[in-house]
Parts: sequence; structure tokens; C-alpha cells
Amino acid sequence: MAKPFRAVPAIPSGNERYNAKVKQLNERLEAQLPASLRLPKEIMGNLPVNVTQIPETCGLLSDQELAITALDATDLCAKIAKGELTAVETVTAYGKRAAIAHQLVHCLVDFFLADGLARAKELDEYFAKEGKVIGPLHGLPEQTPVKGKLGSAGFLSTVEFSPEDSLMVKILRDLGAVLYVKTNQPQSIMHLETVSFHGRSLNPYNTNLTCGGSSGGEAALIAMKGAPIGVGNDGGGSIRDPCAKCGLWGLRPTSLTMPQGDYLHYEMGNDGIIPSTGPMCRSARDVDFFISAVRATKPHLVEPLLVPLPWNIPEKLDRKLRIGIMLHDGVVVPQPPMMRALKRAKSKLEASDEVEVVEYLPFEHKAGYDIIRELYFEDGGATVRRVLEEGGEDILPLTEWVISPPHTKEHTIPEAWELRFRRDKYRQAYSDYWNASGCDVILCAPFPGTACPHDMARYWGYTAIFNLLDYPGFVFPSGIKLDPKIDVAYESREPLSEPDQYFRDFYDPEYMVGAPVNLQLVAKRFNDCMLVAAQRIVERIILS
Amino acid sequence: MAKPFRAVPAIPSGNERYNAKVKQLNERLEAQLPASLRLPKEIMGNLPVNVTQIPETCGLLSDQELAITALDATDLCAKIAKGELTAVETVTAYGKRAAIAHQLVHCLVDFFLADGLARAKELDEYFAKEGKVIGPLHGLPEQTPVKGKLGSAGFLSTVEFSPEDSLMVKILRDLGAVLYVKTNQPQSIMHLETVSFHGRSLNPYNTNLTCGGSSGGEAALIAMKGAPIGVGNDGGGSIRDPCAKCGLWGLRPTSLTMPQGDYLHYEMGNDGIIPSTGPMCRSARDVDFFISAVRATKPHLVEPLLVPLPWNIPEKLDRKLRIGIMLHDGVVVPQPPMMRALKRAKSKLEASDEVEVVEYLPFEHKAGYDIIRELYFEDGGATVRRVLEEGGEDILPLTEWVISPPHTKEHTIPEAWELRFRRDKYRQAYSDYWNASGCDVILCAPFPGTACPHDMARYWGYTAIFNLLDYPGFVFPSGIKLDPKIDVAYESREPLSEPDQYFRDFYDPEYMVGAPVNLQLVAKRFNDCMLVAAQRIVERIILS
Repeated sequence: MAKPFRAVPAIPSGNERYNAKVKQLNERLEAQLPASLRLPKEIMGNLPVNVTQIPETCGLLSDQELAITALDATDLCAKIAKGELTAVETVTAYGKRAAIAHQLVHCLVDFFLADGLARAKELDEYFAKEGKVIGPLHGLPEQTPVKGKLGSAGFLSTVEFSPEDSLMVKILRDLGAVLYVKTNQPQSIMHLETVSFHGRSLNPYNTNLTCGGSSGGEAALIAMKGAPIGVGNDGGGSIRDPCAKCGLWGLRPTSLTMPQGDYLHYEMGNDGIIPSTGPMCRSARDVDFFISAVRATKPHLVEPLLVPLPWNIPEKLDRKLRIGIMLHDGVVVPQPPMMRALKRAKSKLEASDEVEVVEYLPFEHKAGYDIIRELYFEDGGATVRRVLEEGGEDILPLTEWVISPPHTKEHTIPEAWELRFRRDKYRQAYSDYWNASGCDVILCAPFPGTACPHDMARYWGYTAIFNLLDYPGFVFPSGIKLDPKIDVAYESREPLSEPDQYFRDFYDPEYMVGAPVNLQLVAKRFNDCMLVAAQRIVERIILS
Repeated sequence: MAKPFRAVPAIPSGNERYNAKVKQLNERLEAQLPASLRLPKEIMGNLPVNVTQIPETCGLLSDQELAITALDATDLCAKIAKGELTAVETVTAYGKRAAIAHQLVHCLVDFFLADGLARAKELDEYFAKEGKVIGPLHGLPEQTPVKGKLGSAGFLSTVEFSPEDSLMVKILRDLGAVLYVKTNQPQSIMHLETVSFHGRSLNPYNTNLTCGGSSGGEAALIAMKGAPIGVGNDGGGSIRDPCAKCGLWGLRPTSLTMPQGDYLHYEMGNDGIIPSTGPMCRSARDVDFFISAVRATKPHLVEPLLVPLPWNIPEKLDRKLRIGIMLHDGVVVPQPPMMRALKRAKSKLEASDEVEVVEYLPFEHKAGYDIIRELYFEDGGATVRRVLEEGGEDILPLTEWVISPPHTKEHTIPEAWELRFRRDKYRQAYSDYWNASGCDVILCAPFPGTACPHDMARYWGYTAIFNLLDYPGFVFPSGIKLDPKIDVAYESREPLSEPDQYFRDFYDPEYMVGAPVNLQLVAKRFNDCMLVAAQRIVERIILS
């Protein structure tokens, strides 16, 4: 048997039945990854904390494979469409790189490259005969139910080999996508961290740190260039958080504008907060590329819960973009590298004639955060405990935290109605406040810092507040990474809250060195197209 | 003291405190209606069952006032805009006619004509000075919270003098609307009937019959031409049912496309089914007129729960309209006059080259009806009982029916999630079924018959199923009324269900003579504009 992959810290424990099934799943994945793609002992025994360069230096990929996997999805698909690349060579390159990535950051849960190559061959034959590609999305992996492949809702007891493709997968296949991997998500799918019965995924830029969550395996894979693009489902940050922590581009669209039918969950019908599915990318343009392609298939005709809003990114805005900068949310002050990125962005934007910059003060974010935390588990976490019990699975610290009082309690039906009414009143009050500010977008942190050390992500306010409001949010690299020489200390100020103190206490620039620093741009509900246009402007100014 | 208005049958009872407060409300309304507008004893002592002609024959209205109140809103507003009518004379005519209507069908709960006239005077002054009207909606009453006026959520304990205008009222006022009455709704707002602590509203075409509900007071008032147009809020039929029963035009739009912030309810946050607000009219074109005007104000910018869909009625459809005719829903066969109207419509439509007609068989309507009935009161009716108790108010038979098993039970949170998941799966299955039918719209009954005798409306399936699905529905007159000479008996067939037997048992063409017969046209979610265009075609063919 081949040498096992890198030991993964703190795998969740459970009873005997649990351990047996976990072992089986681990061995299954182990067996799926070809011996020819194992990283040699000299490399595995001597890993740097930043593993992003290892695919390029390990010698397992050809120059051509490295070149293919360096392309973003837009370029990749353009080259396939022109016949400059075949689907087979593309899928081969990505499959190999994904296997390498997995050994370094433990991002996969299922690996089916043979299926991907078979499909790629069909696509190449079609191209040879018809002279055109089936659709623009050749070679995109993702994580929602794929027929016959491993799926779960974040607990061992929910593992399935999915009986059908979900609608998103059907659409992607129709667009010519090739699927070859499924990626890891955390226990309960409710961590900004990725650790599950499959093990723990790591941040490619610093394996001491989390890759974020819940789509952390997906983000780690994409950051390793083991996939050109991916899909997440964001109910509290699950697209934006892992994209932010892994230095990617990601959009959480307004909810119910993208197909998400049949996604796996353990609380189906829990609709107090509706997650939203969207792309995780290696460029800003890929966000538009992905959504344009999916929307063009008119998924609202098939999935009746969807809102048929048009998708047209304006070339020009009809007035000067007004950007509110929110340096902190009144609850947790971002750690030094995030504050540096915000101030750097602010000064660059202020220096531009193209935009108008104002200070944006948070509107009762603590109150909103309290509401969404209470909404997530209206049953007081009883279902989570039941599903754990069914799998013989022990609860992880972050799962215990997310379902614990004071934020979570068991509700009667009238109490749940009252809670949802508070949600709607908050939405109205926030909207009034935003309208009064006159801002088109606000720029803020996506998390109170960069990726944190494992199991420390105990504040969701910067992403979850916009889930509560259902405002689209776009995360993207700020142009800087955590530098222990610069990002030394907080400005001296009293902590704002207990979580603020917590983030100050664990901040350690030496340990967290090299973590990407991403920013978040937010617009009001249904202003997704304007947001994408605004992000282009902001990125251009900030990165100039 | 003036002679009291017509005795109203079966006013709900209650305890002493309740009776005292009800008496106070009755006396208040009594005092608001001027003595000069009392119908003489000779008329009130000798009323026909059809009272629609009495305003024209009673001698209290001038020819000019009769002519004004004969106009639909579109014509009325056009004449005001051209200076052919003043706001003051319009409001005077409508105020007088509303007071007369109330004596005949007991439709009002608050009457504030003086306020209306003061506002009309301002509007006329503005017109004299500026040569234009403030907006297109001069002279429209309605029933949502109006600052300082009587409001309630259908129970005595919820009575208020509203502290603020609701958003809809603010918009209507900005458009130049004049408000002068509030109208009656049933206990709990959850009857297809209108009987409350204010008393019972009657059907103007046959006072033996209900005017429908929940916006029954509004429908009775409009059918009496005591208002040109009105507003309802439809969570199970509350626009469509009273419009259908009173021979009006009414549209329940796709929900959350029209402003409904601050509407009164006793279960705020109960969001398993979201009602939808829309117009109740005396012509089809007034439906478009009303919605166009309201949507043009962009209410979604103010009310963040709203979806900003465009409102543009296509002049022409891009293909031949495909109409599915559903003769019954598989649960209750419509009573003879409704079946006659459906078959008459079918044969006229089949004779037209302009449309394509197919049979539409219902898709598991009983299952859907069971789901929505269970969704309305996830608390098993506990809140209804509490709110009744608080007001010392006895429960009415239809309220008891609507909160009773088997349809209603108390849910835990996981049971409520499971119920909502069943809702979403039903929506998906229904949409798939509809898509396979290829229909653009379906034509069906809005209720299993015309208006029924009081307190008999114990089946909501024909309207509520489309609330569950959130499909827009347009009701409109079929061109016929119940004729005891023609609409004699059911075709002999076994009853489909217990409610089917119930509707057969009480059907009595002599007693129900003259009831208007309306039809319902339904489209899929968010296809409101196509639906309005389709209704124009269908109405033209059916009424030709």
C-alpha cells in the first residue's frame, strides 16, 4: 500500500461504528489517488508552511500542465473554444494537480478523474466533429450532489452516494463542465473552518491556519490551482469566508437568484435564513463568467423558488460610485493586517477622481448578528445533536459553540414567528439607514483578520450580517499579505467586546505569516450587477 | 338619535367587556354617518335581495353624482386630470354613495369623509395653480393602516387607531389618492366570508349571500360603487375571493412585488405563506392602472423585502396563448353556474383562432391544500385563541373550522421545517407538471361556485393552492350570473370528497339567485405581466 498522505491534525472522533466508517472512507479516497502522483518523502517530510509553490517544484507536473493550471476559467475556456487546448489535456492537468493539492492541504473527499477524462474525451470528439464546444464551462469541479459520488451534509450520518445530479450540476454539465472531485466541508457545514469526519483541510498559504469554511476544501483546492473555479453555498459566509482566507475571488449573490435545488442539508425546510450559491474563483472576471453562463440557461424556469432577475453588468455606472468605508463593525476591530488593507484601500480610493468615498458607520451589527445566530438553530441545536448521535460522531468545539446559548435556544412556533419578525424589522431599519447614507456599496473586512489558526473562527459578524440582510457580497484580494514586520500590533484602544478581546488575544503575526488579506464589497439586495461593476472599479484602483 | 342601520345577522358575541367595546365602535360609526344620507324607512323596510340599484333609485344622489360613481378609476382619473371633474365633487359623490352602501351591505368600519374632502380641496387648489394633478390616483380608498384611523387584524383585541400610514397608504397619498373609509374584514382575517366584531358584510347582488373575504367589506363597497377601486391582501384568496363573489376584477400579484409593509396582523413573522397585496377593481384595465402607478414609485427601494421586477404589459404575446382549462380541481366540483361559465368560456375560446385551448388536469391539489392549511397555523391555532381571549371575544364557526384538525396541529420547530420542506417539494413538483403541460395560463374557478350563503365557505382550494405556489391569479366576471332557471342541478356523478358533498348539499339556486359568476386566470410565478396581457385576450373572447 502507498504511503499514507500527510497526517491531518485533530480529526473528529466518535464511537467504534463511526471510526470504522471513517476508516473506510479514508481508505476509499486513498485508493482513488494514483501512486504515480504521490509526493516524495523528501518533500512531504520537509514542508514549508506555505505549500502553494510545491506543485510547481515537485516535478510531477509538466511545463504544459503548469501552464494550463495557471489560467483562470475565462482564459481556459477561451483556449478550449479556439482549439488551442483539448478537454482531455486540461482535465488531466487539473486532475494531477488536485491529487497533489490534496496531499498538502487535505481538500478532497472523492476523486473520480477517470469519469472526468471519459467526459473530456466525449467533449473533444464533439469539438472535432462540430467545430464548437458544447458550452463555455469546460473543466469545472464543484461540491453539490453529483450522481453516484460522495455527498454529505457535514455529518457522517448524512453521507450518501448521491442518487441524482443537483440542478446546478445538471446545468454545469450541459454547459460542458467536467467534474472530477468533491471537496471537504466542516461538521454541520456551520463553521468558518473546515474540519469534518473526512479530516481537516489546511490553508495553502500557511498550513498553520484554517482555509475557512464551509467551502474550505473547495477554496484550498482552487488556491492550489487544483481546479479553475468552484461553487459554494453561503448562509453565513461559506463562499466569502474561504475565498477571503485563501486569497480568492468569490461572490455571494442575492439569495434565490442561482440554482440550488437538491443541495444537501440536515435541516431541509429551515428557511429563516436562505443560503445563496455562487462562484469561487481565481479572478474577478471569472465571477461574471460563471454567473453569466448559469443564468443564461434560465434556471428559474426549472426551479420555481428562484427570482428571474436579469444579469447584465453595466459597462458604466450612471453616476460616480459612492463607496462607504466601514473600518470595523462596532463589535470586533479587525486585526492589524486587515486594518492595514482597509486603510490602504481607503487612501487609494480617496486619491481617485473616479469614486466618492465616505465613512460608513455600522448600524447595530451586534443586534443583527444576535438575530441571525438565533435564527440558524431555532430548535436549540436539537437536530444537530440528533444527527451527530445517529452517526456516533462526537461534537467538535466549533459545532458546540455555534449551537450554544446565549445565541441559540429552543423556540416555540410563536417565538420563532417573533424572531422572524425581528429579522424583518431589522432588515427594514438597516435598509432605511443605508438609504440615508447614500452609498452604492460599502467596503469592509470579510472577517476580523486574515485566516486564523485552526478552530479559532468564533465571530461571523462580517459575513453573516449580510446573509441576514440578503445583500450580495464580493470578496477579493486586497493586494497585501500578512507581514510580521509591518502588521505588528493593534492601535492601542480598549476592546469593544468579548469577541474583540478574543481576536486580540490570539493574534500572532509570526505564526500567521503570509496569510492573504482580502476585502469585501457589499451592495443592497438585488444590486448584484452593480456590485460586480463596482468591484471592477475598486479592484482597479486598489491594485494600481 | 338617528334610526340605526339595518339589523345585521349573527354578530359575534363575547363577554361584557367585549360587548361594551363593540357597542362603542358601533355607535362611533353610527355617529360618523350624516343624518342627511339615511335611507328612508320605506326603502329600508322593503329591501330586495339585490340592493345594487338602490343608490340609483333612492333619490339621495344627483345625476352628476351617479355619473361620477359609474366611472372606473381609469376614466375617473383621466377626467380629473383634464379638469372635467374636481377632486371635491368626486370625493363628495363617493362619500355619499359609500354611506348609502353601508346601510345596505354593512361594509364600513370607519368613515372620515371630512378628512377626504379637506384633502380633495388641497388637490383642487394644487390643480388650479399648477395645471396638473399630483398623481394619477385621485380618490381611492383602501383598508391598510391609515394614520389616526381605525385598524385591526380581525379581532377586537387588535383594534387600534393606527399611529402611522403604512407604506402602501403613503404611496397612494403621494399619488394623489384621497382616503375616506375603512372597510370590514372577518374575525381572524382567515375566512372567505366577512363577519367580525363590526358585524357582517353582505353581498350586494344577493344579501342572502356572503360578499366573500377577507376583503369582503371592500368588495361590497366597490360593487355598490361606493369606491372606484380598493386594495386587498391575499394569503388564501382575500383579494380574489371577494372580487369573484361580488363580480369585480382583482389580481393577486406574485408575492413581495407590491408594498405591504406595516399591514396589521396578529402573527407577525409567520412567513410560511406570504400574502400578496393588490387591487380590487371595476374593470380589467384598472388593475394595470393601479399596479403601474404603484410600481412606478419603486417601492422596492423603500421596502427591502420586495423583489424589483419590472412592470410592462406586453402589447402582443410572442406566441399563440396556450390556455389550460381546469374544470375542477379533483376535490370539489364547482356548482352548476360556475361549471356553466367554465364550459361557456371553453367553447368560446375553442372557437377562437387567437388562442390554443387544452384540458388541464389538476396536479395533486388536495395534497397542496393540506399543506397550506397546515402552514397557516403552525402553532395549532394557539395564537388565535389567545387573541380572542384577550378581547373577551367568542370564536366564530369559520374561525373554529380554519384552525381545527386535521388540517391544523401544533408543531415543534423540526416539524415546522419538515412542513416547509414539503411545501417546497410540492412547489417543485407542481412547476415540473405545469411546465410539461406547456400552458401559459390556466383558466379555472376561483371558488367551487358563486357566493354562497353566509358561513358556508368551507373550502379554499381554488384560491389557496395558488398562494401555496405563489402563482399570480386574476379573477374577472364571466359574463353570466346565477340563473335558477338554467343552473338547476349537478350532472349526476358521485361526489369526489366530503367537501364536494358539502357543496352539493347546500346548493340552492332559488336562494342564491343573481350571484355573479367570476372566473380565475392563473400564470406561473413572476409572470404577472403576461397574465394581465392574457386576461385581456381571454376577456375579449369570452365576453364577445
